[in-house]
Amino acid sequence: MVPTRSREIHLVNRPEGPPKPSDFAVVETSLDEPGRNEVQVRNLWLSVDPYMRGLMGTTRTYIDPYHLGEVMTGGAIGTVEVSHHPKLSEGDLVLSNHGWRDRFVANGNGVHPIDPNLAPPQAYLGVMGMPGFTAWLGIHEIARLEAGETIFVSGGAGAVGSVACQLARRLGARVVASAGSADKVRWLEDKAGVEAFDYKKTKHLYRQLVKICRDGFHVYFDNVGGDHLEAALMNMRNHGRVVMCGMIGQYNAEHPPAGPSSLIVTITKRLTMRGFIAFDHAELEPRFQAEMAGLIASKQIRWTETVVDGLENAPAALIGLFSGANIGKMLVRL
Amino acid sequence: MVPTRSREIHLVNRPEGPPKPSDFAVVETSLDEPGRNEVQVRNLWLSVDPYMRGLMGTTRTYIDPYHLGEVMTGGAIGTVEVSHHPKLSEGDLVLSNHGWRDRFVANGNGVHPIDPNLAPPQAYLGVMGMPGFTAWLGIHEIARLEAGETIFVSGGAGAVGSVACQLARRLGARVVASAGSADKVRWLEDKAGVEAFDYKKTKHLYRQLVKICRDGFHVYFDNVGGDHLEAALMNMRNHGRVVMCGMIGQYNAEHPPAGPSSLIVTITKRLTMRGFIAFDHAELEPRFQAEMAGLIASKQIRWTETVVDGLENAPAALIGLFSGANIGKMLVRL
Repeated sequence: MVPTRSREIHLVNRPEGPPKPSDFAVVETSLDEPGRNEVQVRNLWLSVDPYMRGLMGTTRTYIDPYHLGEVMTGGAIGTVEVSHHPKLSEGDLVLSNHGWRDRFVANGNGVHPIDPNLAPPQAYLGVMGMPGFTAWLGIHEIARLEAGETIFVSGGAGAVGSVACQLARRLGARVVASAGSADKVRWLEDKAGVEAFDYKKTKHLYRQLVKICRDGFHVYFDNVGGDHLEAALMNMRNHGRVVMCGMIGQYNAEHPPAGPSSLIVTITKRLTMRGFIAFDHAELEPRFQAEMAGLIASKQIRWTETVVDGLENAPAALIGLFSGANIGKMLVRL
Repeated sequence: MVPTRSREIHLVNRPEGPPKPSDFAVVETSLDEPGRNEVQVRNLWLSVDPYMRGLMGTTRTYIDPYHLGEVMTGGAIGTVEVSHHPKLSEGDLVLSNHGWRDRFVANGNGVHPIDPNLAPPQAYLGVMGMPGFTAWLGIHEIARLEAGETIFVSGGAGAVGSVACQLARRLGARVVASAGSADKVRWLEDKAGVEAFDYKKTKHLYRQLVKICRDGFHVYFDNVGGDHLEAALMNMRNHGRVVMCGMIGQYNAEHPPAGPSSLIVTITKRLTMRGFIAFDHAELEPRFQAEMAGLIASKQIRWTETVVDGLENAPAALIGLFSGANIGKMLVRL
């Protein structure tokens, strides 16, 4: 029998500074026949996420970095082609973390069926998946946001930010969001129903924040770091909470840039800054998914996607994240 | 009757950068006769604290800045000379916040009797007072330090740090402290019973921290900011807590210096950084005082003082704080 072919994207060079196309290679492979408890899956959608940049260096953070000459792992949605696993059948839609490849063979225990009746399959990489869960955790568990409070969300039009904005608004908070283009601002205002501004058109970020919200923020949901964090800290209310979710503004820095010069306000304003990673909170994921499925069913949450076609374009999609090429979730469709 | 004379230290210039003697003036005043509910107090001990530097500028933080041409307010211990207040008698020892002056007349409600049987009077400006309470809050309320954990305390030989180190050690934690001289290190090792190193003799702070504690810190108690904060963050354990208590390293900066370039580890290590101010927690002060009085009575806590004599030397004592002139609590004796 002719072995099944697949293509994978490998990391072949660790970038210093922004990743470039030559850091990646498309590699043809042939798959083994699925053995006992194994499945063969054909991917339909690949996830492209900012955290991936952090795994392209040599530093171990909360998980091991990518291995050179191996596949770029990450979330993917696929359909089961062959199953030797008792709980999975041909045609099942599944979420895996085997990353950027057309097809794979793996133990079925590491592959999770999704319910396409609750949300479109690719939403399990976005609003119903890790980014949505991250937003939900940040708002409910980390910030413990309450009705009547004001929250500032940077990167408001991203996969996490766009969900955070809407969850905050639904709670009865006033939501201010920053984004990096007129289109993103329009999406945030028209679809997410929050106040938004284009930070790339803003000369002086702190003054802009004061102008929008003179009384200061109860909560800052940071997806950006850098100037955003510096300015937001300065406009926090006493006893405010800072959700340390991401710093996309600096993932490509060759050397970590200096931190916010305003950090002393954590003392004078008695702030709490708290970093988190979604996978620490797996016990809450079923509750999140049930709530999000309800919001989707009742059309109480909006999302948007930026779709790039073709496995070979996954690297460009990742590179694009850092120049703000995406509104909402960045996806590769196979 | 000849009016009672007093001398006060006024702020006459707002320093940019380190305060200098000419920013202060000794001013002779005459006191009014104490009226109804008022007392006349002769000060014995004046407190000199790092936070005072923050009130010498124009920015309102958690309290109003000092007024130009007015007295440097702050903690003081004195003895009641005249009382028209029903709860205070001549000879009572009292804690006030009327600051750097020989004598004052004020409403007795703002003046608090202290019990010299529990601790020496000046200890109510240190281990039994605001700095001790700050240390106690940082360890118990903010860090919620537990037995078996490792804590790093910067500025370990200061008024707050020296108490924090001992409270942490008593809890059963491993305590590592930094200090700025061989004498301070010796005090920390011999009297406070903790591990200590001289950061001024340390070329590479982060490497030093790793060398001392390869497994990283559960808690960092920051009194210093700057390089200390940057290095400590890098050596935190996952889910660690950072007590944002002070940043004495930068109170004299003309422009706020850049923050730690390692701040991104708040996300990857899922840290919580929490700033606090003792006066937010007044409801806990009686519990603190009872506990501290017990520790003093049973000789389970040590403290030390750096004493400067004479009201006119209070400015020099304050200036000295920022070059590390003090071991333990900096005091002015009148």
